[in-house]
Amino acid sequence: MRRKTMKDATCPIARSLDEIGDWWTLLIVREAFRGAERFGHFEKRLGMAKNILSARLKKMIADGILEMRPDEDGAHHSYHLTAKGESLRLVLVALRQWGEDHLYQDGEQMTVLVDNAEGRPIGRLHLTDRDGRPLGNRDMQGREGQAGEQR
Amino acid sequence: MRRKTMKDATCPIARSLDEIGDWWTLLIVREAFRGAERFGHFEKRLGMAKNILSARLKKMIADGILEMRPDEDGAHHSYHLTAKGESLRLVLVALRQWGEDHLYQDGEQMTVLVDNAEGRPIGRLHLTDRDGRPLGNRDMQGREGQAGEQR
Repeated sequence: MRRKTMKDATCPIARSLDEIGDWWTLLIVREAFRGAERFGHFEKRLGMAKNILSARLKKMIADGILEMRPDEDGAHHSYHLTAKGESLRLVLVALRQWGEDHLYQDGEQMTVLVDNAEGRPIGRLHLTDRDGRPLGNRDMQGREGQAGEQR
Repeated sequence: MRRKTMKDATCPIARSLDEIGDWWTLLIVREAFRGAERFGHFEKRLGMAKNILSARLKKMIADGILEMRPDEDGAHHSYHLTAKGESLRLVLVALRQWGEDHLYQDGEQMTVLVDNAEGRPIGRLHLTDRDGRPLGNRDMQGREGQAGEQR
């Protein structure tokens, strides 16, 4: 449905959406976090058609989100998240927390994200200013600038 | 490309992705935060075909992300984010920060998100446990549970 590329957009939201493409990318990243490594794992868990999965994995490797490693036997290979791919965790958590807040009735069956150390539901993401003070959803705006100055 | 609905998924990531649909939803929310209110604003700023925009606005109203308000003259109406729609700000910021980190060369032209009060780039989102201690991208996992227990 999107006609023009947003690859060169000055807005990082647009550029991220352009690289992520459709939702399959995020679901593949989710499955990789859950331990999926082989083509067949992703195919089975996501119910994806082979040709779509194959094209998507290829693109994610080209984009540096996944990397492919040969197995010891040399006959197979597996897929692993790069650091860039792992940093999509925060996007997954943001989507999850929005869904938790707005798309479930209390008591409905739902997966819960817990920390490995203590097994408790993780903390919420918060919008803050540079000093850590809370910001509301409307307390910010975009302006023209340069990459790097946000750091 | 997605064949089956994820509306009833027990994974909140999947359910969020299902409701958001393709990227247009998030770009429409972005424009609404930037002050777009009228059909023509969204159409022009996003370069969307009328029929696609119309269908998408209708769905976003049905989903409670946008609401439509009549103007005083009664002949026109405008679109406004609901609280549910505004809470997608965090998802936009998560996508933005991933793009800032991975998709730009330093010095490239880029919009920067600043707080209204001081005009400084906002703070980064952080993954933490319930007590606010930092978590790495792999320090968490999903488990079966019920909606509500994450609060």
